[in-house]
Amino acid sequence: MRTVYCGQLDLSHVGREVTLCGWVNRRRDLGGLIFIDMRDREGLVQVFFDPDRQEAFARASELRNEFCIQLTGTVRARPDSQINSEMATGEVEVLATSLTVFNRSEPLPLDSNQNNTEEQRLKYRYLDLRRPEMAARLKARARICSFVRRFMDGEGFLDIETPMLTKATPEGARDYLVPSRVHKGKFYALPQSPQLFKQLLMMSGFDRYYQIVKCFRDEDLRADRQPEFTQIDVETSFMTAPQVREVMERLIRELWQEIKGVDLGAFPVMTYAEAMRRFGSDKPDLRNPMEIVDVGDLVKNLEFKVFSGPANDPKGRVAAIRVPGGAQLSRKQIDEYAKFIEIYGAKGLAYIKVNSRSAGLEGVQSPVAKFLDAGVLESILTRTDARDGDMIFFGADRAKITTDALGALRLKLGRDLHITDEQRWAPLWVIDFPMFEQDDEGGLAAMHHPFTAPLDVDPQALAAEPLSVVANAYDMVLNGYEVGGGSVRIHRSEIQQTVFSILGIEEQQQRDKFGFLLDALKYGTPPHAGLAFGLDRLVMLLTGTDNIRDVIAFPKTTAAADPMTDAPSFGNPDALAELSIAVIGKGKEAAERGQQ
Amino acid sequence: MRTVYCGQLDLSHVGREVTLCGWVNRRRDLGGLIFIDMRDREGLVQVFFDPDRQEAFARASELRNEFCIQLTGTVRARPDSQINSEMATGEVEVLATSLTVFNRSEPLPLDSNQNNTEEQRLKYRYLDLRRPEMAARLKARARICSFVRRFMDGEGFLDIETPMLTKATPEGARDYLVPSRVHKGKFYALPQSPQLFKQLLMMSGFDRYYQIVKCFRDEDLRADRQPEFTQIDVETSFMTAPQVREVMERLIRELWQEIKGVDLGAFPVMTYAEAMRRFGSDKPDLRNPMEIVDVGDLVKNLEFKVFSGPANDPKGRVAAIRVPGGAQLSRKQIDEYAKFIEIYGAKGLAYIKVNSRSAGLEGVQSPVAKFLDAGVLESILTRTDARDGDMIFFGADRAKITTDALGALRLKLGRDLHITDEQRWAPLWVIDFPMFEQDDEGGLAAMHHPFTAPLDVDPQALAAEPLSVVANAYDMVLNGYEVGGGSVRIHRSEIQQTVFSILGIEEQQQRDKFGFLLDALKYGTPPHAGLAFGLDRLVMLLTGTDNIRDVIAFPKTTAAADPMTDAPSFGNPDALAELSIAVIGKGKEAAERGQQ
Repeated sequence: MRTVYCGQLDLSHVGREVTLCGWVNRRRDLGGLIFIDMRDREGLVQVFFDPDRQEAFARASELRNEFCIQLTGTVRARPDSQINSEMATGEVEVLATSLTVFNRSEPLPLDSNQNNTEEQRLKYRYLDLRRPEMAARLKARARICSFVRRFMDGEGFLDIETPMLTKATPEGARDYLVPSRVHKGKFYALPQSPQLFKQLLMMSGFDRYYQIVKCFRDEDLRADRQPEFTQIDVETSFMTAPQVREVMERLIRELWQEIKGVDLGAFPVMTYAEAMRRFGSDKPDLRNPMEIVDVGDLVKNLEFKVFSGPANDPKGRVAAIRVPGGAQLSRKQIDEYAKFIEIYGAKGLAYIKVNSRSAGLEGVQSPVAKFLDAGVLESILTRTDARDGDMIFFGADRAKITTDALGALRLKLGRDLHITDEQRWAPLWVIDFPMFEQDDEGGLAAMHHPFTAPLDVDPQALAAEPLSVVANAYDMVLNGYEVGGGSVRIHRSEIQQTVFSILGIEEQQQRDKFGFLLDALKYGTPPHAGLAFGLDRLVMLLTGTDNIRDVIAFPKTTAAADPMTDAPSFGNPDALAELSIAVIGKGKEAAERGQQ
Repeated sequence: MRTVYCGQLDLSHVGREVTLCGWVNRRRDLGGLIFIDMRDREGLVQVFFDPDRQEAFARASELRNEFCIQLTGTVRARPDSQINSEMATGEVEVLATSLTVFNRSEPLPLDSNQNNTEEQRLKYRYLDLRRPEMAARLKARARICSFVRRFMDGEGFLDIETPMLTKATPEGARDYLVPSRVHKGKFYALPQSPQLFKQLLMMSGFDRYYQIVKCFRDEDLRADRQPEFTQIDVETSFMTAPQVREVMERLIRELWQEIKGVDLGAFPVMTYAEAMRRFGSDKPDLRNPMEIVDVGDLVKNLEFKVFSGPANDPKGRVAAIRVPGGAQLSRKQIDEYAKFIEIYGAKGLAYIKVNSRSAGLEGVQSPVAKFLDAGVLESILTRTDARDGDMIFFGADRAKITTDALGALRLKLGRDLHITDEQRWAPLWVIDFPMFEQDDEGGLAAMHHPFTAPLDVDPQALAAEPLSVVANAYDMVLNGYEVGGGSVRIHRSEIQQTVFSILGIEEQQQRDKFGFLLDALKYGTPPHAGLAFGLDRLVMLLTGTDNIRDVIAFPKTTAAADPMTDAPSFGNPDALAELSIAVIGKGKEAAERGQQ
């Protein structure tokens, strides 16, 4: 029905007759002519109707914004004075000779100046997606997926689909459940990830697997989470962790080259311990140059217990962070930062304003200065590399509190004071995570997941001192976001059983829940390792948005609802009876209210 | 960890040292040497261990089938006498110099001669997938997907993901429901297809969309159905039905060229009416040359009411099918075919055995011959183009019964008598389906779906005589399977509302269920059309299997269960309470029994 897209017209088309299909982006009447900007997925072009072509002109006079039309006309170069350099097609325009209206449009229910709530935008998502900046993100997403697939295909990875109707995980708390009609009383679960299936594919010998796949997690949503999200899911056999990282790093580097024209360079590799120590985070944003510096050894002999207490406690940490140019911060700002770090359990924010580095105790302003002697001060300023006009902030508490608080403070200061270079890309690998962490009930939880292999350890040593064991796991971090994570997997049943035991999963439970995995490990399981990227996050980074809903065609609200289709909705009673389930409790009350 | 795949070794590697990773496919000891066929995803190669290399030999002596190993060795050409032409790598072998066992294997629980039930194969799916013919199908599937994506990308289609947690459809009977934890009492539904979302994407202006996407249908399963299945889903704006068919036909033609090296040629286009008349099916298998021939006009004046009754009834049909060489069929066989067509409501199977075409009534054998005169017989034989040795079968009943029975009989005879050329590929398009069909309750149902546009008709004419209206819909048929189907969609709200009304969906219901679609149609909806292919079916055809479970990595049984992971499973009571649902009725009884 069309010969060319609006957005593709340029001087090479001058003199040619073209047929266009698209929408009236804007109409304006000028000097007896009717001008429209016509829009299709590739862009805009200016079309004008001349009263001499009566039929087309008469029809054009009925055009309103967002009418869907087809028109034929001749491409002309615009006179120099009318060239619109803001518009990709601004050197040309189309003189329309005929016009068909495919469909009229009522005035849109969305404000064209974008004064719309997100709820309104989601209710009329199909209209919001007409905005070129929204359409561009989804086009970029398609291009990104296509690139990833070509790369993975080229590296010999096989695209294999894993099931969506799967078995519920033991905890089950975050599973979306799906009642079975055939097996009444039973439920499938939507997968939180294809983890075990991809491991089974390695056991089958597929060697290299990938999939761009929907995953599901029913958790309390935050602004950057969605109940359904998409992973680039990868698994390999017979590759070491560094080999897996090499391929995946190359993928991301080539992807950035393709989409952004940017060379990310080689990714630094940092241990979890180093990342926590220097940046207070397992996903450090390296665009921010500030680092956390330990000063415990310098202050342990002070009378000042706030510092010397944690400095002498093996579980304590005293550390500092130098804020370049931070001496300008007001008392009020400092108080706000002190309040901010209370979230992390910190009980105050000691600081030293460095007015004149060379003037010793006289050159600084600090509520704690009186507790320091000149030597300690000097050694702190030296270690933090302080300069005139800087601010030194301190954390002194249990190690976790100090680390978390200074880590968060570092990020906030980086943004607030424009110390973080937002124009840069700063990727890295974080490796050597702990296998386990203490959970809230005092038990142990897997830091990655229970299928992650420990690094160089036998089952006995693993069981003996689990908290000190390092996992052969790795995260890819970019600009402070974890964009991907993975690990070498356990490929021996005795280690898998040991890990399950450490996690408090008893033998019978192990059989019930993971019998198929333990069985599979008996039949020549290869060493294998993998990784998963969060596609939504990658697209967000590549399209420059902080809103995950901007990179998903039909997202849910933060309350996991779709205002457009009105999903979820109350169940049809017959359908529920057929599934042998009934709505009870709060749900029943809600349904009764809703169906009145 | 490897330098090359086992299956890639050939004479070009002779003299080279290689490292291989994979599985012991088979071990045999011969003349003091140990031979193994070593397997990886690319194939097999013969490796031998020489007692002179003591360490490797000692380790090799412990090898059993399915051990997962790594070995290094030197590639040698086999002596002419030992070349194995059955094996892709049969010209070479590897002399092992070192061996590492990654993992041992217990004897497999599956019979190596494939005497396994499908239940056993599914329980140990990861082992069954080690079989080269199983692995080959999944590798072909990956290649097919990759090809389809490259084609679609190249044609400017955008890969856009649509949601999995969607709104239940009005009927809801086949929806998988997903209880919402946040919105207690409410449910999402897993999509039976992304139909409305892809239409909305056209309303947004994306112009060309595709997705390879999981869809779900909770229906009573047949051998060739799965609760979750995969579609190649396509939608376009501003394209006519023939244009859509052209692109999609090209995709399939190029796919067959790529995977099978076969040129499918141009696809014939046939109306639904013609397909039903000539082949008794809306998905005719054109590899079968037999056709159904109307003979009602020839028999309407006979005294023989079995023929003349339906022949004179406007709702009746009398037709014949010529079976080449069918005169050889025994009385018993004919009785079996008569029994077979009873399924379709036929009450008998009249036939004429043509022994000698030139001998008139004397030359045939038939229980109905006595009711025919020579002229009628001759005209029937002429019209069916009967030859000596043929069989003519008749259907004479209500049109639907005659058509269905002869259509089914045609397929069965084609297979039984090897008349159907199983080596051929016979694609076609079937177009011009009826918009509506009568449902069991006497109402009207959409033959495709309620969003299908009628062909050239205004809302008034549509409402006046819906059963005679033709839909602008098309199916792609290949070897008797519907591999894809689609239509031009309704893009005007008055037609959409008329269709809803014809289907008995009242105005309030229209708003409740499809409000967002009716809204969307008000804002400049473009003309649009699309199609969806069943990926599983395409892969089945391309890999030569009749079993849908052969082309899915982790399929469900026909009872929609997974014997490997034991999904679905009884719900965790806490999780169900959290979702505000309870299991009742039969499900509750089952759960109580199951959890004792």
